[in-house]
Amino acid sequence: MPQERPDQAWRIEESGYSPRRAEILGSKFLIANGSLGYRGTLEEHGKEALVACTLSGVYDRRGDAWREPVNAPNGLLVRLFEGRRPLSPAASKALRHTQGLDFRHGIHRRHTAFALARGNRLDYTVERFASLDQTKLLCLRAVLKAEKACVLTLHVGVDADVWDINGPHFGPARVTLSGGLLCVDAKTNEGTAIRVVEAVNGLAGPGRLRRMGKTFVREYTLRLAAGQELSFSKFAAVGTSKDTGKAPLAAAKALCLGAARKGYPAALAATKAAWERRWKASDVVIEGDPEGQKALRYSIYQLLSIAPQSGAGASIPARGLSGQVYKGAIFWDTEMFMLPFFNHTQPELARNLVRYRVHTLPGARRKAASLGHRGAFYAWESQESGDEACTLFNITDVITQRPLRTYFADKQVHISADVAHGVWQYYLASGDESILLQGGAEVLAECARFFLSWSYLKPLKGRYEILDVTGPDEYHERVHNNAYSSAMARRAVTTALQALDLLKRRHPKAHAALVRRLKLAKDLPALNDLARRLYVPRPDPKTKVIEQFDGYRRLEDCDLKTLKGRLLDPREYLGGGQGLATTTKILKQADVVMMLNVLGSEYPDAVKKANWEYYEPRTEHGSSLSACVYALVAASIGRTEWAYRYFMKTATVDLSGDSKQYVGTLYIGGTHPAANGGAWMAAVLGFGGLSSDGRVLRLKPSLPRRWKSLSFRAVQRGQWVSVRLSHGKVRLEADRANSKPCPVAVGGRTRDLKPGEVLHA
Amino acid sequence: MPQERPDQAWRIEESGYSPRRAEILGSKFLIANGSLGYRGTLEEHGKEALVACTLSGVYDRRGDAWREPVNAPNGLLVRLFEGRRPLSPAASKALRHTQGLDFRHGIHRRHTAFALARGNRLDYTVERFASLDQTKLLCLRAVLKAEKACVLTLHVGVDADVWDINGPHFGPARVTLSGGLLCVDAKTNEGTAIRVVEAVNGLAGPGRLRRMGKTFVREYTLRLAAGQELSFSKFAAVGTSKDTGKAPLAAAKALCLGAARKGYPAALAATKAAWERRWKASDVVIEGDPEGQKALRYSIYQLLSIAPQSGAGASIPARGLSGQVYKGAIFWDTEMFMLPFFNHTQPELARNLVRYRVHTLPGARRKAASLGHRGAFYAWESQESGDEACTLFNITDVITQRPLRTYFADKQVHISADVAHGVWQYYLASGDESILLQGGAEVLAECARFFLSWSYLKPLKGRYEILDVTGPDEYHERVHNNAYSSAMARRAVTTALQALDLLKRRHPKAHAALVRRLKLAKDLPALNDLARRLYVPRPDPKTKVIEQFDGYRRLEDCDLKTLKGRLLDPREYLGGGQGLATTTKILKQADVVMMLNVLGSEYPDAVKKANWEYYEPRTEHGSSLSACVYALVAASIGRTEWAYRYFMKTATVDLSGDSKQYVGTLYIGGTHPAANGGAWMAAVLGFGGLSSDGRVLRLKPSLPRRWKSLSFRAVQRGQWVSVRLSHGKVRLEADRANSKPCPVAVGGRTRDLKPGEVLHA
Repeated sequence: MPQERPDQAWRIEESGYSPRRAEILGSKFLIANGSLGYRGTLEEHGKEALVACTLSGVYDRRGDAWREPVNAPNGLLVRLFEGRRPLSPAASKALRHTQGLDFRHGIHRRHTAFALARGNRLDYTVERFASLDQTKLLCLRAVLKAEKACVLTLHVGVDADVWDINGPHFGPARVTLSGGLLCVDAKTNEGTAIRVVEAVNGLAGPGRLRRMGKTFVREYTLRLAAGQELSFSKFAAVGTSKDTGKAPLAAAKALCLGAARKGYPAALAATKAAWERRWKASDVVIEGDPEGQKALRYSIYQLLSIAPQSGAGASIPARGLSGQVYKGAIFWDTEMFMLPFFNHTQPELARNLVRYRVHTLPGARRKAASLGHRGAFYAWESQESGDEACTLFNITDVITQRPLRTYFADKQVHISADVAHGVWQYYLASGDESILLQGGAEVLAECARFFLSWSYLKPLKGRYEILDVTGPDEYHERVHNNAYSSAMARRAVTTALQALDLLKRRHPKAHAALVRRLKLAKDLPALNDLARRLYVPRPDPKTKVIEQFDGYRRLEDCDLKTLKGRLLDPREYLGGGQGLATTTKILKQADVVMMLNVLGSEYPDAVKKANWEYYEPRTEHGSSLSACVYALVAASIGRTEWAYRYFMKTATVDLSGDSKQYVGTLYIGGTHPAANGGAWMAAVLGFGGLSSDGRVLRLKPSLPRRWKSLSFRAVQRGQWVSVRLSHGKVRLEADRANSKPCPVAVGGRTRDLKPGEVLHA
Repeated sequence: MPQERPDQAWRIEESGYSPRRAEILGSKFLIANGSLGYRGTLEEHGKEALVACTLSGVYDRRGDAWREPVNAPNGLLVRLFEGRRPLSPAASKALRHTQGLDFRHGIHRRHTAFALARGNRLDYTVERFASLDQTKLLCLRAVLKAEKACVLTLHVGVDADVWDINGPHFGPARVTLSGGLLCVDAKTNEGTAIRVVEAVNGLAGPGRLRRMGKTFVREYTLRLAAGQELSFSKFAAVGTSKDTGKAPLAAAKALCLGAARKGYPAALAATKAAWERRWKASDVVIEGDPEGQKALRYSIYQLLSIAPQSGAGASIPARGLSGQVYKGAIFWDTEMFMLPFFNHTQPELARNLVRYRVHTLPGARRKAASLGHRGAFYAWESQESGDEACTLFNITDVITQRPLRTYFADKQVHISADVAHGVWQYYLASGDESILLQGGAEVLAECARFFLSWSYLKPLKGRYEILDVTGPDEYHERVHNNAYSSAMARRAVTTALQALDLLKRRHPKAHAALVRRLKLAKDLPALNDLARRLYVPRPDPKTKVIEQFDGYRRLEDCDLKTLKGRLLDPREYLGGGQGLATTTKILKQADVVMMLNVLGSEYPDAVKKANWEYYEPRTEHGSSLSACVYALVAASIGRTEWAYRYFMKTATVDLSGDSKQYVGTLYIGGTHPAANGGAWMAAVLGFGGLSSDGRVLRLKPSLPRRWKSLSFRAVQRGQWVSVRLSHGKVRLEADRANSKPCPVAVGGRTRDLKPGEVLHA
């Protein structure tokens, strides 16, 4: 075992074993590398404990059930027996059991002390990680030490009996022993089936191949001497026909054999190095608040571990890589809650997320067309093709057990504006014009065109309106002139025109080709008109409150407690056709306040304050996306103590595991990457006051009292700046390696920070 | 007692007594005269049997409950006792009991034979009517005859303990004995209270005044000789401060005394004469179908008895004058289902119905303004002021007992188009330009302006659309481009422009004044543009089916039986936020077919046929308005046997009493004047094929096989024509009294029918 003991600041751990808690720890202790996620379960666990190795961007559908991401066979299966007695805290009480995660390097550790026969004690320690260096590789090392000599049985193998929500997704697996490796080769159900393969090594000695149902192991007899450590490593290489074409198994075998040959320490060193590179750019240091520091770093760990490292075929699902919840689908969460972190600290990963939206443009076009619209209406729940994965009846009424018609899929039009916002924000932060040339401008044009198609002109009022939509507050469906949706739609149209203008100036040929191909010429005047005359609800002249949508102010002004008092069943959905919130002012999550967050520069502080105060007591925060938005807007108007409460709520969502795990019998647990991204945004964009329009990096810090300082790094158009903020002081340092001066603004004054230059303000 | 025995063809009767049936008979045997309706209960009944004397156009609200029409104290109370034993089939089984209605003259009759003590038998016969000649007068005559001499006690008086749904509506009543009359003087609750008074006469001899709670009677001792008839008359005069100003009681007393002085036979003769005048114009004779004949005449009786005879402050409520159900409110029923009957046979009564909409224009303007709109949005449920009486939560979910948000009041915009249609149809039929000058044109302009305000322009498609409405099929709320609503809205706009044009040509000063007062000049080009470019869903080129609204074709195509099989409670509302029909193609009532009925001349028979066949199996007929529309469209395309079934369903709705009487504990029984009007329409407009564009009276007969002939009269612009249709033959005769030739068209050929001229075709 590696001897170093990770700093407590980078480590979370829980002692004892409880089967109920196991589901929450599965998410909390997740290891992942953007290509696969492996839940924080124990090595001996099976599907009953929700073991999952969830593959990014690989989906399958069985029958009429929802499509969902595929869980690969579990290649890290390790089981110990004394005689026939399985050694597991789930089977019998352990003398001691701890499980934890070193989130600096994404290493899962467990230690269990078992009472053996004849008063013997076994200390069993395992660490494992999903290599950030080799994203198809899972690595494990186990150490056993008994007080007295004993003989144990060890099973090392692959469990193809995987946990699925809507599975099984594999036909019969072909299992072979080849070159010392146990190989599984299976195919998914749907259409052009995907081959999913896995190769795992065994121990040095000869192991008997055993099959128990869909579980394939090699069995070894371990003879432990008293007080001596016995250790072994295991490598599992996963592959699919999607990444490695026709010979995925050969590739997996080569990967597994190579790792085994180089050994565990080499694999560990490589993953650590990769993690260190990431942390160098993305770490945020808070002095004076160990709890906040830890929660924020853990949040950053989650983001870094689940972002696809390559390709355009995947993005970050709403529950990361922690399982199949929410169909492994990509929501607006990615653009609006995660992308800012990547834009400011990991531009290459950000680019992958944007490329995913370019890649799925055809799906968005199909969705728009299916509803009689032009342009691109992005899927509310997007899988690998970008076709809509969200069903029209995606909630079951707990009282009648009937499916409820909801308007997520066909009315939440802001998704296309959110996608456009993401593309443009990435471009602004990176200056990467290639993304615009490689489909980004087309995405922008098609999203704008969708809003042209969706909007109506009200000649009497001389304005366009966005009607019949569902905004972020999903408890109020099918509303007119939703502030967030309309504001974002107008921004999307403006952005498309800006992008086309940019292309015209800098890449006239590409511009001409795009205009021709999309037959844009006729629409351009209409788009200009739309940008100029699209109505966005304005602050009331007296109260400064912006009405969330037409008629909101006439709804019942009922407080949350009263509303919940009316529930007949605690699991009742508050929205839908006749949910209790629908006829009241209670909102699910930040909506107007979300608009003030995203488009904050257009509104004075007084408007933000009035709306924060008006909507905050009326917000249920029924979504994990809500708290960070309230934190951000509060921080932006200097209400740091308000903001801190919401920051901590956001940053601890996956640590506390307080979020709902089940709705009825449906598992909805998992990680919350949007909240993780929200925690970073609250800290850096909120308290740090970082903003960038692509030209100037601005800072307007406003730290919570308990924080002594806040330090982070940020990049703008390739130029890195290290920032240290303390109460009343700002220290900026441009990287020596920067290629040109970076314009920065503190307290309203803009300066060019030359490479290596330090600015105190 | 009058000796004549009314022809069985004009009489309905039921034998035996059942308390449950009593509620249905209360509606079936209703007597009314447009000013008041008196339910078909027994003379000795009290509020437990739903006795009601419902006043037209007089409303009151108590507390937060729905406003509803006021039931006057029951001035026809007559109770008989032998000793202390009440004589009533409700109290003890009668030897014989029959109750019936002579609907030729609106006379209610009951006969009960009671077993008395000592083997004696009493025959008790009462007839009563609401005078069609004196609309504030109720008249009653009772005849008693015992086999053996006996002494009975008689109570004659007023029962102020009235049945109310949301009452009581009166404060303490002042009761006096004055000039031989028992007088009740009471005030309603609301705002400027309305005085409701009643004066009833007593018997000749001296009666002791007795009070039992709110019931006031004079007690008489009747000494019956063996085999001799004893009879007495009773008159009850009702008045309110709304009709007779400050001295309603004096007026009521004078009316009652006058009637008593002239005697019952005179009152009876006067009412009969009034009825005969009505029947002369409105009777329809069917040869070969006694059952259909009777049902149709009964339907006509209902219409004639409930139409207000004067004033503009009232119209015909959805349940006529049969009680307080549906708040005594006026719906689209009046214009779309009843007005055609009056337009063609009772133009003066038709004019009152139209004047009611002129009178309530301010309320319609207030409703539009309250929703941020211009023009006139008529109340879905309209009472005397025209303000909206329909609440936003007017249905209670039987499963959760929660009020359901429905979109009758704020989205059923077709009501304004229906009102406009009514105004214009009345004008076309009557040629009465005065109605246009006296507010009718203003109604049309304001309805058109409302649709200008409601509609949106879709520049990409070059059309206006009517969005977010509820059509006649109330199970699908908040839909876009509902065929009926859009077609009727377009018609309303066109009509307003026609009316303004007519005014401009014929009454230029009035036109100029109206345009100036309504500031119409600026809107006229917009209205012209709207009339030209307002989108109405068109028949599918292949199937000829017109989609009921955007997206209807994507709904589940589930049959009615399957749908009903999903009910958890038989009383479940199928519409609302998540009613079972909302996500299916099942419609509550004719919607596209209703459009094809009203605007039938714009569509070829093939389209009507295709839509009839498509929508008929998908229609629940959850409204009594539906069947007649299916009858009409079927008849118009020569499918007379399809039509006949629906005609009979419509014509017998109040005879069979099969309609729902209660929803939960809420009484919803009563008469169905829209179905009554529908029966007339099905017979005359449907089978008779009568239509008129105000210039030419057209006939396109298509009789059911069993009908030998169909005869009726119709008026066009003051010129009366008698029509007799038999299979293959048409006989038309213009009245001798006509002032000018009447253009008629049969089989496509138009001719002028001179006064007295007979045409065979």
